[in-house]
Amino acid sequence: MTPFEYLKRTEKKRMDELFQLLRFPSVSAKSEHKKDMKECAAWLRHHFKALGFKSRVCPTGGHPVVYAEYISDMRLPTILYYGHYDVQPPEPLNLWTSGPFEPEIRSGYIFARGVADDKGQTFCHIKGLEAVLRATGTLPVNVKMLIEGEEEVASENLPPFISKNKNMLRADVAVVSDTAQFGKDYPAVTFGLRGLAFVEIVVHGPDRDVHSGTFGGAIANPINVLSSMIAKLHDKDGKVAVPGFYKDVKPISKWEKAQFKKLPYNEAAYKKVLGVSALQGEKGYSTYERTWSRPTCDINGITGGYQGEGGKTIIPSMASCKITCRLVADQHPADICNKLERYLRKIAPKSVRLQVIKYGGASAVVVPTNGPWLDAAARAIKAGFGKNPVFMKEGGSIPIVADFKRILGINTVLIGFAQSDDNVHSPNERLRVTDFERGCKAAAALPAELAKVKV
Amino acid sequence: MTPFEYLKRTEKKRMDELFQLLRFPSVSAKSEHKKDMKECAAWLRHHFKALGFKSRVCPTGGHPVVYAEYISDMRLPTILYYGHYDVQPPEPLNLWTSGPFEPEIRSGYIFARGVADDKGQTFCHIKGLEAVLRATGTLPVNVKMLIEGEEEVASENLPPFISKNKNMLRADVAVVSDTAQFGKDYPAVTFGLRGLAFVEIVVHGPDRDVHSGTFGGAIANPINVLSSMIAKLHDKDGKVAVPGFYKDVKPISKWEKAQFKKLPYNEAAYKKVLGVSALQGEKGYSTYERTWSRPTCDINGITGGYQGEGGKTIIPSMASCKITCRLVADQHPADICNKLERYLRKIAPKSVRLQVIKYGGASAVVVPTNGPWLDAAARAIKAGFGKNPVFMKEGGSIPIVADFKRILGINTVLIGFAQSDDNVHSPNERLRVTDFERGCKAAAALPAELAKVKV
Repeated sequence: MTPFEYLKRTEKKRMDELFQLLRFPSVSAKSEHKKDMKECAAWLRHHFKALGFKSRVCPTGGHPVVYAEYISDMRLPTILYYGHYDVQPPEPLNLWTSGPFEPEIRSGYIFARGVADDKGQTFCHIKGLEAVLRATGTLPVNVKMLIEGEEEVASENLPPFISKNKNMLRADVAVVSDTAQFGKDYPAVTFGLRGLAFVEIVVHGPDRDVHSGTFGGAIANPINVLSSMIAKLHDKDGKVAVPGFYKDVKPISKWEKAQFKKLPYNEAAYKKVLGVSALQGEKGYSTYERTWSRPTCDINGITGGYQGEGGKTIIPSMASCKITCRLVADQHPADICNKLERYLRKIAPKSVRLQVIKYGGASAVVVPTNGPWLDAAARAIKAGFGKNPVFMKEGGSIPIVADFKRILGINTVLIGFAQSDDNVHSPNERLRVTDFERGCKAAAALPAELAKVKV
Repeated sequence: MTPFEYLKRTEKKRMDELFQLLRFPSVSAKSEHKKDMKECAAWLRHHFKALGFKSRVCPTGGHPVVYAEYISDMRLPTILYYGHYDVQPPEPLNLWTSGPFEPEIRSGYIFARGVADDKGQTFCHIKGLEAVLRATGTLPVNVKMLIEGEEEVASENLPPFISKNKNMLRADVAVVSDTAQFGKDYPAVTFGLRGLAFVEIVVHGPDRDVHSGTFGGAIANPINVLSSMIAKLHDKDGKVAVPGFYKDVKPISKWEKAQFKKLPYNEAAYKKVLGVSALQGEKGYSTYERTWSRPTCDINGITGGYQGEGGKTIIPSMASCKITCRLVADQHPADICNKLERYLRKIAPKSVRLQVIKYGGASAVVVPTNGPWLDAAARAIKAGFGKNPVFMKEGGSIPIVADFKRILGINTVLIGFAQSDDNVHSPNERLRVTDFERGCKAAAALPAELAKVKV
């Protein structure tokens, strides 16, 4: 019996078990679900035990981490799998066709909160490993599984947990399935994520809102000043105008450009999905290059003065905005925050007082594209999905991936089994049954492929 | 007995009567005070009747107008006095030392809501006219008194009332005391007010907030776009960059410049009052010129994206702001709104959809400085305050003054008896006892001076 045959035979049981996992309302954001979180973690631990893993529920400052390991032979490569069992709040409930915690299959999709993000994807790996174990009696690699309960609430307790348990978590590579395929016929290996630098600025003018009739014309208006400063963040070609911003940015490699060019791109459809009539970005780059491989500087929010109905003729006392830069390797969040501050202080007029709050951020992540791990992952995807994967990146951040690099010194292979339209974080979250099944097969094929890598 | 002697003799009674007027909680903004508004209007009507005026309370779509007239001789000049008996809400109550509707004299000041804005100032004229009537048996001019009850809620019903009663209100000049003196030793005649043009703009990007990781770099960010547009409203010299904006602006006359130069100006004190470390405005003009005689363009409020605590990594769906321009003669609100819209549409990139809402506004007002009315007012001020007044302007608008010009074709003499630090619209509103007394004297001197004007 091969692992794939095992999967075929256990299809019904596997779906029943997935439904059990999905029924836990493991909403990390709400304290009323603390018990559900514990029960979900306990269920996972028992599940691992039944498979022959050593497993325990580890307390943290917040919701517990489930840790499980199967050590076959210390001379084999060790793989650290990461996933999370917590989910986003399901509200608004009235928009769900079936209950968020009452999984149901309709039109080829499993519907439930967390089925795509991330219980279903994590479960693919658990079931893939089970298939290999049951079919062959062992695993060709050592496996460490880290399943956290706070991903949807910023994983505050995870980096300290990793630092504290460096030895336990020591591995050669990490595997994360918490992203999406490129599209319905495009399974993907994701080899990079952008990082983030976050700064908030406040422009202070008069010490209270003052009458724009009495004082308008004589003093700086904090909103006008802030707007002028924001306008100076980009040049006319859409490049970020902060001195030194691009210093650590590497040109996009030929190989990378070639991968992106292979991907289908329909600008009309892209615009339609967003409801915009024209795109806009850095001159000289394609949309994928702009969103995956080039850094940005966006204002996420701005506020100042009177914002209610009608008018109020004031010069406001202050105006503020939140700025985030998406970073690419090798930009550093702290360095970019500092450069932003220096520039903003330089361009702020003397007629206002500028306050800059630097929040830091996360580094970008790039998995070496010439390394053996990506190739191994690609072969497993091919085996599971019957198709070679595309190589893509993502514009967002998964901070834990940077933490694995920083704390454990390992790269991460990102293989997402979901689709970008699976309503992650929205009502009617779903996962195609075929994506779940192919994900399980790819996960079952993965250990043997990773075992081939010389470490 | 001269009018001044009459005022001297009736000092106590006059203050008692003022206190009666101040005790009505005539808050126009709150429907619970509808009865108080009616009682206050009735009190004024009775008061005028007792003086020998014809008087009535005129219903409007909102709070009633009190109208009173004393026609001495139709060949004499006719003066239209304007004031308002409604007041701002007194909240927050805990910041008042004595009750807002329990007038009290402390340290030379009368404290009560409305004592400066505008019951106390209007009462100066009533008592001044009474003094002339009692001392001389008649008035040397015809007097029409229009005291409205909706000034603090935008006077929506007043312009239609004036249009409907054009004949009744026909006059040669209007007198309004609803402004402030220049300072404690600087009684003033105000010969100009700036107008206002109000436009709101909304920049629409994607049809919902989208993830700044996934889409950042590929589409226009409405906040960044709006900021760049705002930045283009001014050039580097602080001039408004909207084409044609200054077309109808007259250069500041030599006489006007000379009047402003006579006024004391302490930049350090000006900055300190506002809590700013440097002033900023249009190059080549002084602070008084900037705030009284030059047009402006200020953002009164801006909003867009996430404004709560912490961060939210989105490209927002939209951003909007409220723009008001302070206008000077002969700029027209509708024309300026149109020019603003044309310019904003020109500078908006194709990657966003721009919505422009034009609210119109009010025209600027300038009383002809070479006319006889200002001189007459200046002589009355001299008589009442013992000091020649300064000639100044105000940066704000009093829309009714433009309405008098537009509907009745008459100019307005603005003689304010209050001080700019009398806490108008704030807790502990006050009026100096000496300013009230001198105001009554100036008001008593005014009819004889206006009677000298050839009409």
